[in-house]
Amino acid sequence: MRLLFLGYLPIFLSMICAPRMEAQQKEISSPNQELKLVFEINEGKPFYRLEYKNQEVIRKSALGFILRGNAYKDTSDLDHFNDNFEWLDTQTASSDTTWRTVWGEESHIRDHHNELFVSLRQSTTGRLLNIRFRVFDDGLGFRYEFPSQKHLGMFIIADETTEFAMNGDHEALWIQGDYDSQEYDYTRSKLSEIKERYKSSYQSNASQETFSETGVQTALMMKSQEGLYINLHEAALIDYPAMHLNLNPETMTFVSWLTPDAWGNKAYMNAPQNTPWRTVIVSDDARDILASRITYNLNEPNTIEDTSWIKPIKFMGVWWEMITGRSSWSYTADLPSVHIGETDFSKVKPHNRHGATNENVIRYIDFAAEHGFDALLVEGWNIGWEDWFGKTKDYVFDFVTPYPDFDVQKLTDYAKSKGIALMMHHETSSSVRNYERHLDKAYQFMKDYGYTSVKSGYVGDIIPRGEKHYGQYMVNHYLYAVQKAVDYKIMVNAHEAVRPTGVGRTYPNLVANESARGTEFQAFGGSNPNHTTILPFTRLIGGPMDYTPGVFEMDISKMNPNNNSHVNTTLSNQLGLYVVMYSPIQMAADTPDNYMRFPDAFQFIKDVALEWEKSVYLEAEPGSYITVARLEKGGSTWYVGNNNGYEARTSSIDLSFLDPGVTYEATIYRDGKNAHYRKNPQDYRIEKKKVTAKSTLKIETASGGGYAIQIQKK
Amino acid sequence: MRLLFLGYLPIFLSMICAPRMEAQQKEISSPNQELKLVFEINEGKPFYRLEYKNQEVIRKSALGFILRGNAYKDTSDLDHFNDNFEWLDTQTASSDTTWRTVWGEESHIRDHHNELFVSLRQSTTGRLLNIRFRVFDDGLGFRYEFPSQKHLGMFIIADETTEFAMNGDHEALWIQGDYDSQEYDYTRSKLSEIKERYKSSYQSNASQETFSETGVQTALMMKSQEGLYINLHEAALIDYPAMHLNLNPETMTFVSWLTPDAWGNKAYMNAPQNTPWRTVIVSDDARDILASRITYNLNEPNTIEDTSWIKPIKFMGVWWEMITGRSSWSYTADLPSVHIGETDFSKVKPHNRHGATNENVIRYIDFAAEHGFDALLVEGWNIGWEDWFGKTKDYVFDFVTPYPDFDVQKLTDYAKSKGIALMMHHETSSSVRNYERHLDKAYQFMKDYGYTSVKSGYVGDIIPRGEKHYGQYMVNHYLYAVQKAVDYKIMVNAHEAVRPTGVGRTYPNLVANESARGTEFQAFGGSNPNHTTILPFTRLIGGPMDYTPGVFEMDISKMNPNNNSHVNTTLSNQLGLYVVMYSPIQMAADTPDNYMRFPDAFQFIKDVALEWEKSVYLEAEPGSYITVARLEKGGSTWYVGNNNGYEARTSSIDLSFLDPGVTYEATIYRDGKNAHYRKNPQDYRIEKKKVTAKSTLKIETASGGGYAIQIQKK
Repeated sequence: MRLLFLGYLPIFLSMICAPRMEAQQKEISSPNQELKLVFEINEGKPFYRLEYKNQEVIRKSALGFILRGNAYKDTSDLDHFNDNFEWLDTQTASSDTTWRTVWGEESHIRDHHNELFVSLRQSTTGRLLNIRFRVFDDGLGFRYEFPSQKHLGMFIIADETTEFAMNGDHEALWIQGDYDSQEYDYTRSKLSEIKERYKSSYQSNASQETFSETGVQTALMMKSQEGLYINLHEAALIDYPAMHLNLNPETMTFVSWLTPDAWGNKAYMNAPQNTPWRTVIVSDDARDILASRITYNLNEPNTIEDTSWIKPIKFMGVWWEMITGRSSWSYTADLPSVHIGETDFSKVKPHNRHGATNENVIRYIDFAAEHGFDALLVEGWNIGWEDWFGKTKDYVFDFVTPYPDFDVQKLTDYAKSKGIALMMHHETSSSVRNYERHLDKAYQFMKDYGYTSVKSGYVGDIIPRGEKHYGQYMVNHYLYAVQKAVDYKIMVNAHEAVRPTGVGRTYPNLVANESARGTEFQAFGGSNPNHTTILPFTRLIGGPMDYTPGVFEMDISKMNPNNNSHVNTTLSNQLGLYVVMYSPIQMAADTPDNYMRFPDAFQFIKDVALEWEKSVYLEAEPGSYITVARLEKGGSTWYVGNNNGYEARTSSIDLSFLDPGVTYEATIYRDGKNAHYRKNPQDYRIEKKKVTAKSTLKIETASGGGYAIQIQKK
Repeated sequence: MRLLFLGYLPIFLSMICAPRMEAQQKEISSPNQELKLVFEINEGKPFYRLEYKNQEVIRKSALGFILRGNAYKDTSDLDHFNDNFEWLDTQTASSDTTWRTVWGEESHIRDHHNELFVSLRQSTTGRLLNIRFRVFDDGLGFRYEFPSQKHLGMFIIADETTEFAMNGDHEALWIQGDYDSQEYDYTRSKLSEIKERYKSSYQSNASQETFSETGVQTALMMKSQEGLYINLHEAALIDYPAMHLNLNPETMTFVSWLTPDAWGNKAYMNAPQNTPWRTVIVSDDARDILASRITYNLNEPNTIEDTSWIKPIKFMGVWWEMITGRSSWSYTADLPSVHIGETDFSKVKPHNRHGATNENVIRYIDFAAEHGFDALLVEGWNIGWEDWFGKTKDYVFDFVTPYPDFDVQKLTDYAKSKGIALMMHHETSSSVRNYERHLDKAYQFMKDYGYTSVKSGYVGDIIPRGEKHYGQYMVNHYLYAVQKAVDYKIMVNAHEAVRPTGVGRTYPNLVANESARGTEFQAFGGSNPNHTTILPFTRLIGGPMDYTPGVFEMDISKMNPNNNSHVNTTLSNQLGLYVVMYSPIQMAADTPDNYMRFPDAFQFIKDVALEWEKSVYLEAEPGSYITVARLEKGGSTWYVGNNNGYEARTSSIDLSFLDPGVTYEATIYRDGKNAHYRKNPQDYRIEKKKVTAKSTLKIETASGGGYAIQIQKK
């Protein structure tokens, strides 16, 4: 019926309501008046623009959609939903609330914004579209809302035509748009240089699909010639495809580019339904970008009543030894392929390089327990690793059957006796139907053996084939796995899942994601020395990252003679990561033997807090340096972390955040005189200093260096 | 590792084992020596041919595959696995066994065949391929077997290159090859005419994708000029795509054409693994095609130990009134779209055309109970029917939430008190991820309320989008739903699922499929009058069909003034269907009011048996007529069914199958003198006659007519 009706509607309605063609506009400002959002309808087309301190941040930019017609598999069947709009209604509102976090960089977050809500009708079809803008002191969020209406029920989005028109040829830190991979090093260039730098910015991965030589991913961090810092991302990505940005270099205008499905459609909608929020964080001080909580504020409140089971975790892992190639996830080299449920591993010859053996796991448990860790991740414990990779294999794992040399009962009991929880690992190999079919049993298995958290992985091309990692179909799946985990009181740490957009506020059992180029790549060829001075401005805008810091041995050939990769940071930089890269779960990634070579440096990893009362951003320049101070939750000890980029630099920090009149002892883990990420990464020294709120510390940081400080009341 | 190794292999192996080039061959015959299968390797290529009574049925036809290379998304990356073969080993065997059926046209089935097993190695790659041939008196079955081997683990089939070279321009009864629809009327033409008749053979459907103007579906029924009947199909379609056939009109050679996935690949394999069997049923008597049990014999034995819960069902349905448009599946016209879990149906205005209301269902229960039926199907009982169709909607049904006017507890209790079981309906709208996510809860819901069987449906394009109804991904799903049903002791009757291939032997809880053009199309424009004289030679070769016979009112406008469709059979033909179209579940499709207008004819539907001791095929010519006699299981009463095609005809049947020397009473339900499927479909008469094994009955059948006979000992 709807389809039929749509056919007749245009003729019908255009008679009774021809669009009013005069321009109309409405503006609102941020609470501090520094940001101004202007919305207008011009010749039936909706536009917005944004000013910060009277400078234009977003020039007049179009809004709207192109829908797919009734022939939903025909990508040439287009139905414009971005013109012929008339203004029906306008509402404004103000809100100033504060909410308590379950975990986070602060115990409480203030949500202070002014809101503009506009109701539009497409005069030619009678279809309704609402747009909601929220202006905060630190930026703008807006989303489209499709209200319940007679002429729009189920519909398909062919393209979202939201523009972000930049006011100049800004410098950007970007990675190329890709439907399946986020694991790129960042490129720093002018917007006008993106196209020529595109090829050189490519890095191959197990699954990837790029779409445009001017396509980039969000969160996108930019800096204008005038020194304005501008960050574009999205919030509350739920039941919708992830948004990329495609630049028009002629006009310096980005247009939203949604991840398509197997047919080339973008999103399947069902009114009433809202899109995610599009966010613009802006300031003339880079530290404000890190301090912005827009992304969380634009997500729905926590939906989990009892959160007592959601706890921060400091963990080690039987992992780095596999990543570096010292040991292996697999058990045997004798099987050309594995048949889950049929292959009998007790009858095959082990290659004796398996990492997840009872002996090895017990060794890690003992070490983790001795040094006060909460948990131990064990990868490669379950059968299927012999042919899991790069073969688009459907029935690849069952998530409940261990290899013969991994005794689940014995190991979980032993770990428990030592106060260690084992952390589950669910590599899905992106065989998503198979994972969903096993999910209940896999989660029940975790409950039965006392696993409280799972690291899941989505390496390789998605099955169902034709779907992409960041399409609506998969966005739906990642949340399905998180929601189901709530029923079992399981914390989820999903790797290769879509980049987070603050959804961890609504589902705080989503404690972390990787979803960017993590430490593992330091063993796959290395990352740029300044990589972690960028991630907090990009990937972490959406939520915690399981970056897996704490590598002490930078020469990977020491782990595996056949691996010549190098970790491109100093040892002190690795310590700084525990404060710079926020996550409620933090790993000590390296192996016990490497930590025992540097017990004094290891002490910081053991001491550093996981939960924070508040955070103070002391220094920040994306791509160059970040220095953060955080106060441990419910305590008085401060931790300071610094990461430095390519250029050696002297960091100067003012400790006025300390309680006045109190003397503290600062334990400083810093680069040594000759430290250099490549030439001399393990040159560090540890100093103790008395400090007060009046103190200023000047600390030299090496190329690819950094430091960490513990500041305790004495 | 495998991928790497494959790269080097050719050079390496071609040196140590160049293929032996001389032709080699081996032949075996059927137990009765009438069929002869010849296999040969010629210049490294494997071929087979088949003779019947010294006439060539299948001329020399190639065997093998083209595999996808390592770039598994690149359809131009081909890896030939149909040449350079050398013969490693040959084994022959004979087998003569008889097995008991759980349900079927006979209580016992004899499996008598000779077997040829050949082991081949591709000399250029070292890869192994085995082919197993089984020759029965009524035909040939062969399959490919990929043994466990070092050089072939996970691999992808780009194309199967199996040929079926016909020995002439046969007459064929065919429907066009389609990845998503089987619901076509048949076209009768010479093979050489398929291409020109292709366009006119098209019939639109909710989901369909054709692929070639010479593409047809199996089971394909053919007749040679010499009067040889040849049937091509497959058996044991498990974890593999359904096979179509593409004709080369120059050579009269069919080549297998597998259903692709979203990437254009055909099958994802993991050695050791076998393909389904390719079957050629052949005889110079059409009745032998109907009597053939090759398809079941080539399937694995029953895997369900306790089959006591698998029972035949004679059922009615709150269904035909929706199909014809008298009532509706949906509840309201006021919702542009439904949000499962959010939309509150108790608050919407009913359109009062809903079929599955308490009152209406109770009316059907009373009628079904009064007339001795076992079950009642109720469709449109669960929320979601307002926007389920044609919108590629993901979360479309939850399978457990009834409309406000359908009281599950009350109705199941009431039905139980009347000795009626309600039959569940799970229309998935082809949203398969959604169905699998709900499957356990949906089956548990059935158990909780005492539903013992489910009719499932797959109308519309498949979600995940890009997958096809008959691709490997969906073939896997259909079986997954059947296997899961075993855990809940649920019988499955899957509509729009892939055409069956005898898998019901292995999983007898798969009691039926539609999977062809069923009775519903008589209300959607009508089917050809001879449709059911073809289906037993095509669709039913693979297993029981839920054809839903028993329509007494042929003028659909009497059901719904806005529906001018016509049921193109006589009333007697409808009665004949209960014997002609075998199924362990049989529906009386029409409404109580229509049955009450013809209580004497309705008596046959009430009387006819569902389970059979044996079947005797009395007359058969595909597309023209079929007459079958069946003996009720564990009883002495025979039932005879006849369906006739376009031409009025006198059926002459010899009753020598009756016990000698015994007098029986035959109750004959036959066309009246003026009966005609279109002009006078309801003209029938009922006669009683004394008959013995010596009797011959001559019965006139009208155009689109037929008859049914009950023969009881007196």
